[in-house]
Amino acid sequence: MSVTAARGFVASGVHCGIRRTRNDLALVRSTVRATGAGMFTVNRMLAAPVVVSKRHLELAQPQAVVVNSGNANAATGAQGERDAELTASTAAQLLGLAREDVLVLSTGVIGVPLPIDELLRGLAPAVEALSPAGGAAAAEAILTTDTCAKEALEHGEGFVVGGMAKGSGMIHPNLATMLAVVTTDYPLEPGEALEFLRPAVERSFNAISVDGECSTNDTVVLLANGSSTAGRDDSAFAEALDAVCSQLAAKIVADGEGVTVVAQIGVTGAASMDEAIAIARRIATSPLVKTALHGRDANWGRVLAAAGSAPFNGGYARLDPSLVTLDFDGVRVLELGAPSGVEPELAGDTVTIDLDLGLGGGSASYLTSDLSSDYVRINADYRS
Amino acid sequence: MSVTAARGFVASGVHCGIRRTRNDLALVRSTVRATGAGMFTVNRMLAAPVVVSKRHLELAQPQAVVVNSGNANAATGAQGERDAELTASTAAQLLGLAREDVLVLSTGVIGVPLPIDELLRGLAPAVEALSPAGGAAAAEAILTTDTCAKEALEHGEGFVVGGMAKGSGMIHPNLATMLAVVTTDYPLEPGEALEFLRPAVERSFNAISVDGECSTNDTVVLLANGSSTAGRDDSAFAEALDAVCSQLAAKIVADGEGVTVVAQIGVTGAASMDEAIAIARRIATSPLVKTALHGRDANWGRVLAAAGSAPFNGGYARLDPSLVTLDFDGVRVLELGAPSGVEPELAGDTVTIDLDLGLGGGSASYLTSDLSSDYVRINADYRS
Repeated sequence: MSVTAARGFVASGVHCGIRRTRNDLALVRSTVRATGAGMFTVNRMLAAPVVVSKRHLELAQPQAVVVNSGNANAATGAQGERDAELTASTAAQLLGLAREDVLVLSTGVIGVPLPIDELLRGLAPAVEALSPAGGAAAAEAILTTDTCAKEALEHGEGFVVGGMAKGSGMIHPNLATMLAVVTTDYPLEPGEALEFLRPAVERSFNAISVDGECSTNDTVVLLANGSSTAGRDDSAFAEALDAVCSQLAAKIVADGEGVTVVAQIGVTGAASMDEAIAIARRIATSPLVKTALHGRDANWGRVLAAAGSAPFNGGYARLDPSLVTLDFDGVRVLELGAPSGVEPELAGDTVTIDLDLGLGGGSASYLTSDLSSDYVRINADYRS
Repeated sequence: MSVTAARGFVASGVHCGIRRTRNDLALVRSTVRATGAGMFTVNRMLAAPVVVSKRHLELAQPQAVVVNSGNANAATGAQGERDAELTASTAAQLLGLAREDVLVLSTGVIGVPLPIDELLRGLAPAVEALSPAGGAAAAEAILTTDTCAKEALEHGEGFVVGGMAKGSGMIHPNLATMLAVVTTDYPLEPGEALEFLRPAVERSFNAISVDGECSTNDTVVLLANGSSTAGRDDSAFAEALDAVCSQLAAKIVADGEGVTVVAQIGVTGAASMDEAIAIARRIATSPLVKTALHGRDANWGRVLAAAGSAPFNGGYARLDPSLVTLDFDGVRVLELGAPSGVEPELAGDTVTIDLDLGLGGGSASYLTSDLSSDYVRINADYRS
């Protein structure tokens, strides 16, 4: 219901036949004229739906989003782009919209042509099934190796922000194979949506990591249709949008492939904000840190080794070993470069890692997960 | 015998008590006056022995190398540096050398004070055991989670280059937790060794990856004592040094923690040489590529997704999806951006991945390994 919680939105999730039995086609639309924005992967190997959706956003305000799972329509050449356009135009015709009003999102296997006949055949039933009660079905139909649907909802003064997301492997800054659609009845003027979406994404989807991968298809879409009776309170809206994005991002990390523990990494005292982010990200993506977390081993030396090797500006982020202080799950293990001799006992399914560099005012935080044998099993077996 | 194959070198490996039962202290020295050079980790969190060895190299030509396993003497504060200096000065005294003639290398757990009493007590027996037959014992004493000793040997016209290395986890560009000592009787003048060592290391130890980690302790040392009767043939020497470094690097990858397959990644047609390296490295360190390799799945879409997201100069290395051609284990799977529909069958313990970007003349190659459940098990259990 989350993606249809805001007034004037309908959604559906159906089975079109890309996947054997699970639903694989979702549709979200605004029933009144909406504005919106999208943010996309920075991967140079752009998938066809990303190319097409970016093009459509340059031409029109988005009114509807088609999402298929089971096939990413990536590395599919010129045919892939034609298939993505055909998906948008067919959906547009059924919805009484212009082709460029429709965005297309895909997730699944790379390098296999999109089963376009199945997808097109599924669009009519998907349009037929559109309903204010269709949010949960849509959230279900966009999943791949996810173990559960991911929805989030925030109520503001007279307005609502709701969203759905998928993503469990390849989760990294820059939205790696994650898709999210967020809707709101808050009133925005054309062109404003991106100003709100960008900072919310930076603080949420771009500050999580499961395996350091960055996919060809990652997309976050925001649709705003102004059906709310509320007046404008931009900071309240920004806060609600932040909250929805952060909740969805946290659900993605917690549902990471094979994840048994979630770690909150905080970096302070960095020489600059960008260096803080680089160091937090490096710790968050270190296989040795992540395997130690899996073993519930407070192996803080690995955190330091990762912090000292954070790529930055063609070199490495600044760090002075004699100024570093590290708390592992609330226990001071290193102070100004010298070990305290105290070893924290890790238990439970969350861990905090707080690193202070003692150099300046830069700070950043990151959510990450452990790296487990299940992650390997899932990804050695699954063609994605 | 490799590290003592060149005339005028002796070595030993003994048990000093840092590790419970396995030998943990190695010594290599030249019996005649040598010149030499070292290359070190770029990690900002420099271990004490790296700080000390760099300092000694600025003051003198290296004559002997002390290596301990079981403790990295990293993140050990000012005490760690005193311990490393004490190790060097004690060894120097026993060997009749100046303190700055001795380099110290450590590998093992981070953040635990070096058991300095054990180490110092072990130095006399290590000096006592020095012998031209001691190369194998030294190569054994420097290992940690390695499953086998790594030695290499090349004979030139009248000269010999021999080396030993350790490293199995944390292997990445920039020498991540790998140690190597290479000796030769080829005649070099003081100051020349680094000119030969640097390019050899770039093409070998800096072009391998097991898990993308970069350690606090990585060091490669070259000692050259001119005991050879040969005249100078610098290109022959450079070739032999390259060969020894490449053999040691390949042995490190093949012995990577939990490794079952080694992949040779070739990138051609990149917009620049540096972008070729960035792309090859990104593919080589992608968990999704590496888990697919483990499953013997020619999941080439993951190779493309990795190639498209190679960090470069604060952005990403250039790639045009419509110009990319990919061969997986000799089979053309993608040509100019369009999939061929042919799927290679992977078998055996080596795989080749050849990516042509069609943009320019940049090329690079990289050795990497699969990512297995055993890697996770080893690193979740092992405090390193």
